[in-house]
Amino acid sequence: MTANFSFQRLAKCSQTHARVGIFSTPHGVVETPRFMPVGTLASVKTLTPSQLKDTGAQMILSNTYHLHLQPGEDIVAGSGGLHKFMGWDGPILTDSGGFQVFSLSKMRKVTEEGVTFRSPHDGKIIELTPERSIEIQNILGADVIMAFDECPSHISTYEEVEAATARTYRWLERCILSHKRLDQALFGIVQGGIYLDLRSQAVVDLEKFDLHGYAIGGVSVGEEPDMIRKIVQDTAPLLPVNKPRYLMGVGTYKEMIMAIASGMDIFDCVIPTRWARHGTAMVKGERWNLKNAQFRRDFSPIDADCPCYTCQNFTRAYLSHLVRSQEILAYTLLSIHNITELIQFTQKVRNSILNDHFTKQFAQWLN
Amino acid sequence: MTANFSFQRLAKCSQTHARVGIFSTPHGVVETPRFMPVGTLASVKTLTPSQLKDTGAQMILSNTYHLHLQPGEDIVAGSGGLHKFMGWDGPILTDSGGFQVFSLSKMRKVTEEGVTFRSPHDGKIIELTPERSIEIQNILGADVIMAFDECPSHISTYEEVEAATARTYRWLERCILSHKRLDQALFGIVQGGIYLDLRSQAVVDLEKFDLHGYAIGGVSVGEEPDMIRKIVQDTAPLLPVNKPRYLMGVGTYKEMIMAIASGMDIFDCVIPTRWARHGTAMVKGERWNLKNAQFRRDFSPIDADCPCYTCQNFTRAYLSHLVRSQEILAYTLLSIHNITELIQFTQKVRNSILNDHFTKQFAQWLN
Ligand SMILES: [Zn+2]
Ligand SMILES: [Zn+2]
Repeated sequence: MTANFSFQRLAKCSQTHARVGIFSTPHGVVETPRFMPVGTLASVKTLTPSQLKDTGAQMILSNTYHLHLQPGEDIVAGSGGLHKFMGWDGPILTDSGGFQVFSLSKMRKVTEEGVTFRSPHDGKIIELTPERSIEIQNILGADVIMAFDECPSHISTYEEVEAATARTYRWLERCILSHKRLDQALFGIVQGGIYLDLRSQAVVDLEKFDLHGYAIGGVSVGEEPDMIRKIVQDTAPLLPVNKPRYLMGVGTYKEMIMAIASGMDIFDCVIPTRWARHGTAMVKGERWNLKNAQFRRDFSPIDADCPCYTCQNFTRAYLSHLVRSQEILAYTLLSIHNITELIQFTQKVRNSILNDHFTKQFAQWLN
Repeated sequence: MTANFSFQRLAKCSQTHARVGIFSTPHGVVETPRFMPVGTLASVKTLTPSQLKDTGAQMILSNTYHLHLQPGEDIVAGSGGLHKFMGWDGPILTDSGGFQVFSLSKMRKVTEEGVTFRSPHDGKIIELTPERSIEIQNILGADVIMAFDECPSHISTYEEVEAATARTYRWLERCILSHKRLDQALFGIVQGGIYLDLRSQAVVDLEKFDLHGYAIGGVSVGEEPDMIRKIVQDTAPLLPVNKPRYLMGVGTYKEMIMAIASGMDIFDCVIPTRWARHGTAMVKGERWNLKNAQFRRDFSPIDADCPCYTCQNFTRAYLSHLVRSQEILAYTLLSIHNITELIQFTQKVRNSILNDHFTKQFAQWLN
C-alpha cells in the first residue's frame, strides 16, 4: 500500500449495494461506477487519445499478453512506458495475460510454475509465470496491474475449478512478492467458476493480503446470464468495502446495473468498439444496425441526447452512407458514440446513486 | 460570374510562372498554391472533419460519380447539401463524373448525348450527360463544380483525341446552359491528351466563356512523367491569369513544383490517404514504409518539423507497432500526417513565392 493510490466511498444506495467512489491513481482519478474502454494493443480501436478523452474515458485497459507479443514490453519501455507510447496520460490498467493464455493460445501446458504456449506470431514457445507477468506489467508501467490467475473453462468440473482457484491463490502470493513498483497498484482476482462456495473461499483468501483492489474474473466466459448474476450478487458484497472492485469483461447495460447493485465499481468490455466496426450503434441499451434501410434517409443524430462528437455533427443518414460504403470513418464515429454512450450510462448511474434514486431511475434494468 | 467568387493574384515569381493567389468561395478562401485532399464518398478517408481542418485543408474534393451511386444526391440534398451531410464547412469541389465514367465503369457507351454505363452497385443502366452531371452537382451543392468532359485514354489516336476534345467543348456549352446556381462556380476542363496543339486549341475554346476557373484534365492517366511535364508547361501559361487554375489528379512534390512553376494553383491526389492505408508515411518527398524493421525502436516522431497531431504526439515506434498490428488508428494517424505534409509543402511554396525565392528554395524539385 502506498500513498499513490486511494479509494474513497462517497455515497451508498439505501436499497442495494450500489456505491459511488473515487479511485485515485498517479495518472488521475476514476470516478466509479465507470465503464473502462479496452485498448488491447495500446490503441482503443480507431480512436486517437484526444477522441478517447472526449468520450469521458478515465481509466482504460490494455492487454499484457498482446503487448508482450507485439511490440514487446521492451519497446514500450523504450518509449517511456505505456502512457507515453500510446499518448494516453490518464489511468491505465493492464490485465495479467492469464485470461488470454487460457482462452487464445494453442499448445498450452499448465504447471505449478506457470503456463507455456506457442506464440501465434512466430510459433516460439513462451512461458508466462506469475513472476514473468508481473515483470512485464512492471515494465509496461500501467497504473493498475492484475495478478496472474488460472482461468478454468466454464465446463470444468468442481474439482478442476477448486484446484485452479487454489493455484490462483498460490500464484497471487508469488505476484505480490515479485511486484516491484510502488507507483503501480496490484489487484487480486476472485476465481471459482460457477461454484459459489469456491468464490467465497477465494474472497476470504484474497483478503489476507491488503491489496489495492479486487476483481471478479472468470465470468462471462460462456455460462448462462443467470449464472453470471448469481456469481456477482453472491461474491461482490463479500469484497472489502474500502477498495475498488472491478468486474472483468462485462459491459452491457443489464449486466452493469446488476453488478453495480451488487457493489461493483469498474467494468470493461470490447463491445462498443467491436460493434462499431460492424456498423452498429448502441442506443439506450439497444443495438442499431446502421445498414438497415430505415436509416438511409434519417436526418436525425443517432441519439439527440448524446453529447458526443458524432451525435453533435452527423446524421444517421450520413453514418448509414459511411457504413454502406465501408468507409473507416464510420467505425471511428460509431466507436466515439458507443464508448460515450456506455460512459454516460455509468455516469448517470453514478449521479443517481449520489441522489439515492438509483433503484427508481434504473428500475427497468434491475429486473 | 457572380460576386460569390473572386480570385486575386497576390504575387508572382520573377523567374517562373509561379504565382500566389486567393480564391474566395461562399464557404471560405483557398490560399493558392494549395493541395486539396480527396473525399471521394463525402469522407476524406479515416478523418473526421475536425481532424481534416487541423491538417490545414481548405478546399476538398468529392466525387459526383461515387456520390450519385451511393448514397444518391437526393439523400445528400435531404441532409441540407454536401457541406452539412459530411460536416465540412469549408470549400468543396465536386468533379463531374466524367473521368470516373471513362476510367471505372463497365459496358460504357458514348454518344453525342452523353454516356450510358452499368452501375457497379446494382447493374442498372445509368445515363450521365452534361445536363445530368450539372444537375447532380447543383443538387450536391459544392462550391466549385466541374464541366462534364470526355476523357480519352492515353493510348488514343490523334483523331480520337481531337474528336473527344471537340465534344468536350460542345458538352461545356450544354453544362453552362444547364447550370442553375449562382453560389456554385463552374470550372471548365482543358482536354487534348498528349497533343499540345489540341490542348492549345482547347484553351482558346474554353476562354470564349468567362468561367470562374479552369482545370487541366486528362493528365497522369498513364502517360510518361516527361509528357505530363510537357503538357502542363505548354498549356498552363495559356490560361487566363485572373482565374484559379486546377491541375487534376496530381500531388507529388516534383509534379506540383513543376506545375506551380508553370502557373497552376490547385492540386488534388488520393496518395496521402491511400499510402497511409498501406502504412506509408510521406516525409519531405520520400515514402517510408513504417513496417520496416528500422522503425520498430525508433522513438522519434515521423518528422520533427511537422506540426501535425501525429508528429506532435507519437513516435515512429508506436506507428510501426500500429501498422504491424493492422490497427485502424495507424491509418488515421498516417493520413493526418501525410495530408498535413502535402499542405505544408504547398504552404511553404506559397511563402517562397511571396518572398520571391521560390526557384532558390525549391531548386532540387525544379530539375
Ligand atoms: Zn453520440
Ligand atoms: Zn506530421
